[in-house]
Amino acid sequence: MLAVATATVMMASPVFAGDAAAGKGKSVMCAACHGAAGISAVPMYPNLAGQKEAYLAKQLKDFKSGNRKDPVMAPMAMALSDEDVANIAAYYASLK
Amino acid sequence: MLAVATATVMMASPVFAGDAAAGKGKSVMCAACHGAAGISAVPMYPNLAGQKEAYLAKQLKDFKSGNRKDPVMAPMAMALSDEDVANIAAYYASLK
Repeated sequence: MLAVATATVMMASPVFAGDAAAGKGKSVMCAACHGAAGISAVPMYPNLAGQKEAYLAKQLKDFKSGNRKDPVMAPMAMALSDEDVANIAAYYASLK
Repeated sequence: MLAVATATVMMASPVFAGDAAAGKGKSVMCAACHGAAGISAVPMYPNLAGQKEAYLAKQLKDFKSGNRKDPVMAPMAMALSDEDVANIAAYYASLK
């Protein structure tokens, strides 16, 4: 019974590189533009919910380094540690 | 009856700036990396399905102009007319 339950939980929970719960705690700033559930209310801002974790992490790193330029995202990303980036990416990837 | 049916169809079909059907026809190149249904099979490549139309169009224009730099996307975007950009953005925004 326990094995079946464990297997079910494992199947229902995709594995993320970052800590999605920690990322949720750091996502308040993101939510202002990208929506509390990762669905943006603004046409020009992308939805983040269900996006690929590796892609989200790369974009945050690129905003931070200036490799991807955006006047809004640059200062947001600069305030994040590498761990924050990994956790926030995991959080948005985990949303539907 | 017709009025109700028309209203139902209109409610079920969000309005896009571009022509999603025409965009679908131009999306073969995109599908190679971003998936036939806009869900990428590659962790580093973003899902496009259900993304904001205005955001998708802006990114394609930025790849085309070099404002957003990516060695894979630059040549893809350069091959697209402004109309293609609008239609492809509408197509991916229309997917779930």
